Amino acid sequence: MEDCIFCKIVRGDIPSFRVYEDEKVFAFADINPISTGHTLIIPKRHSRDLWEIPEDDLSAVHLASIKIIRAIREVLKPTGVACVQLNGPGANQVVLHYHLHLVPRMEGDPELPVATWEIREGDMEAVKETARRIAAAVG
Amino acid sequence: MEDCIFCKIVRGDIPSFRVYEDEKVFAFADINPISTGHTLIIPKRHSRDLWEIPEDDLSAVHLASIKIIRAIREVLKPTGVACVQLNGPGANQVVLHYHLHLVPRMEGDPELPVATWEIREGDMEAVKETARRIAAAVG
Repeated sequence: MEDCIFCKIVRGDIPSFRVYEDEKVFAFADINPISTGHTLIIPKRHSRDLWEIPEDDLSAVHLASIKIIRAIREVLKPTGVACVQLNGPGANQVVLHYHLHLVPRMEGDPELPVATWEIREGDMEAVKETARRIAAAVG
Repeated sequence: MEDCIFCKIVRGDIPSFRVYEDEKVFAFADINPISTGHTLIIPKRHSRDLWEIPEDDLSAVHLASIKIIRAIREVLKPTGVACVQLNGPGANQVVLHYHLHLVPRMEGDPELPVATWEIREGDMEAVKETARRIAAAVG
């Protein structure tokens, strides 16, 4: 898309620090990293989010993520890596071009904000009823 | 695996609120939900994490996520959905069986903790050098 910043990165109109590229996928460093090695993986073809992305692009992004997380392990020796992919402004998706974040955590680093939440026991009747409704709606 | 809680859920040895199932994939409600509709998608075959999961299981999980996020949109009408997948105890992976969280946010809900972080400008030289090292290590 003409005005999409990630499409511009794929075209080379905006410079980026490339980590990986294949026919369908482009991966590059996040320039506002949450942690060392924070990497973004995107489909070259524009899709807004998980509701919109074609299946072949989705598989290509995630197969690329295996290669990249292995390279991250080799280079950075992290204690863990969080994979985060946000859909919709309500989930803080800022750039409206599907992207998968790989966020490594290194020994001694503070906890990753994206990987940290308080565990609270759910209302079992509500959980059950919502699951039933979603299950009924799965095509 | 014998003692894996998610393998027990797949086998039906532990009850769960099922959302979706196919040959390779099982999806069910998180019983400690971050938000209404919090769903987990797992491969039926045990893999620890993204370093270990076979490519066909990984694709199957993510293709199932398209069906489930569409059902979540239909049923819950969220303002966004965060997809989170944690690898390694350092990234707070608690159950060591690969799992993808789908966490919907509804109108009026507080921000999702997993989708919220402070944007800080990176050290460009460090970002560039780490990207170069990861790129060199991608197989």
